[in-house]
Amino acid sequence: MNGQETSGLTIALDAMGGDRAPDMVLAGAQLARIRHPDVSFVLVGDEARIEPLLAKRKLLASCARIVHTDQAITNDERPSVALRTGRGSSMRMAIDLVASGESDCIVSAGNTGALMAMAKFVLKTLPGIDRPAIASFFPTMRGESVMLDLGANIECDPDNLVQFAVMGAIFGQAVLGRTRPSIGLLNVGAEALKGNDVVKEASNRLQDMKLPGDFHGFVEGNDIPAGTVDVVVTDGFTGNIALKTAEGTAALVNEWLRRTFRSSVFAMLGYLLARNAFRKLRRRADPRQYNGAMFLGLRGICVKSHGGTDAKGFANAIDVAVDLVRNGFNEHVKEELDRYGDRHEELAAAMGGT
Amino acid sequence: MNGQETSGLTIALDAMGGDRAPDMVLAGAQLARIRHPDVSFVLVGDEARIEPLLAKRKLLASCARIVHTDQAITNDERPSVALRTGRGSSMRMAIDLVASGESDCIVSAGNTGALMAMAKFVLKTLPGIDRPAIASFFPTMRGESVMLDLGANIECDPDNLVQFAVMGAIFGQAVLGRTRPSIGLLNVGAEALKGNDVVKEASNRLQDMKLPGDFHGFVEGNDIPAGTVDVVVTDGFTGNIALKTAEGTAALVNEWLRRTFRSSVFAMLGYLLARNAFRKLRRRADPRQYNGAMFLGLRGICVKSHGGTDAKGFANAIDVAVDLVRNGFNEHVKEELDRYGDRHEELAAAMGGT
Repeated sequence: MNGQETSGLTIALDAMGGDRAPDMVLAGAQLARIRHPDVSFVLVGDEARIEPLLAKRKLLASCARIVHTDQAITNDERPSVALRTGRGSSMRMAIDLVASGESDCIVSAGNTGALMAMAKFVLKTLPGIDRPAIASFFPTMRGESVMLDLGANIECDPDNLVQFAVMGAIFGQAVLGRTRPSIGLLNVGAEALKGNDVVKEASNRLQDMKLPGDFHGFVEGNDIPAGTVDVVVTDGFTGNIALKTAEGTAALVNEWLRRTFRSSVFAMLGYLLARNAFRKLRRRADPRQYNGAMFLGLRGICVKSHGGTDAKGFANAIDVAVDLVRNGFNEHVKEELDRYGDRHEELAAAMGGT
Repeated sequence: MNGQETSGLTIALDAMGGDRAPDMVLAGAQLARIRHPDVSFVLVGDEARIEPLLAKRKLLASCARIVHTDQAITNDERPSVALRTGRGSSMRMAIDLVASGESDCIVSAGNTGALMAMAKFVLKTLPGIDRPAIASFFPTMRGESVMLDLGANIECDPDNLVQFAVMGAIFGQAVLGRTRPSIGLLNVGAEALKGNDVVKEASNRLQDMKLPGDFHGFVEGNDIPAGTVDVVVTDGFTGNIALKTAEGTAALVNEWLRRTFRSSVFAMLGYLLARNAFRKLRRRADPRQYNGAMFLGLRGICVKSHGGTDAKGFANAIDVAVDLVRNGFNEHVKEELDRYGDRHEELAAAMGGT
């Protein structure tokens, strides 16, 4: 891994992951290449299918090589099975390229559970991190925020949440460009006495810590779309449900709007007049814009794209990976955790501990 | 409690609870009286403030009496303090009227935690119910659904979730009018192997049970607004966060819409044309429509209104209480739990247990 280099970045792509792979993957890579002229790609997958698609894309062909395998992980494969039997799969071989240093990061639109299991097994967690987390960004009233964990860890202890807060803040610096992101811990109320023991203990620790951001305290569900904080920290069970509830609610309101504009001739005419404005709104709310979930806490940058996305969405997932490599994300996490470790020992010593 | 009577229903109102009490409470009661000509009210609170407001409302005055107290629970009172020192408060005295049988139900827009603590203490839980839950209904793609728990129980075991499912199904019958509501257990995936031990165990039990509805299995966050099931069952931590995330997301999309319509002259003209259609949409999405959270599992009907609601919203909360009393909600819950208890013993006996 050469995360601190500022050019000549190599990206491993699981060319067979995603509903419309490999075409969608190649089209996305081509789009990303336009935005990042100094990147090159390793396309891992079935050469017989990739080769003709690559031949049609000159720009991409000029900066991509194929690593052949005819094995691919399916979407319904159990993570444990994928881990045991998927050593020759496009997903696994793309991850291996990061472990060996041949690539700087890997992007896959394949099976999330399998990707997490393999990435954890191959890349290992960063020192000071017990469990990796899935993070993503989403639109808010005030711009964009980041939330983690989105489903990698169904049960979390206070240590996990504290580590997520540190990683989330550095992720916020890298992808949102905030110098000191504000960090909130998701809870059922803003008052200190609310919530379960895990969030209370995590909150106490975060209050005492020197973080790469500002700890805001507890936030509630409505604070997520309000954008009250830059980074929302929670366990994978709650985070997954909150994210999907938000997506579903947006879809519900969108459907109501569609019905409203079709409910009368006047409403239809009104829509025609407002059409341009709505086009802008759609762009802002476009889920492809927020595609690219990062597996934080691994010794290597691994980004998961939605399986159902298109080339534009996949290109955005590649953007996230490029941002993280360019910003030396993992190096920053290591530094912060080292500092926390030192401080932790200092505190323990000051309190008469070891 | 005389939940099986079909007329002459008496409703105790905490006249001092809510941001705009007591005026909002009286105005709401007057509205509810128009819809339910056979109900009467007991207004518990400060007579000096209630009396002149009541004098202005003849319809309400004809069917309401005042029970005086000058003590009221504030919004920032801790539940434990309210329980210890609030014996003479309007909230507590209104609950007492249900316990003594003088009223059929109580509605309050006051402090949620205090209301739950007092209602639990005074009314006690139903036989077979370990912990009461907060349930509410909300709009979906397919109409309306019900979710519980929304925050009464931060941590839940499989027994709690099973009891919530039974109560939720009967609540769904009473407020949605469905004969056999479908019931979903909120989780991070629909597959049986997903989630934590609590939801897996609860799911196994619900699959084997004879329920007053149809158990659909696991549902995800996006299934809540999609209306995949009539009743969504979850713990109070997740339920509270999911509900508030949905509310916040709806507010975000609404704000985007507002900005979209103001972004150009054409868009503004478009809005004017579509105005009538949008009025209908606003009515459908009006949170006052979904006001009225029920405390399920107590030996008495207790409904909590949003503190910030107006007369229309408060009248809807009264509607929920009336529906539950009229439908003999608590009697149905008792019957179902008795049946489950018997079946449980049968099963245990068949398996060689006690």
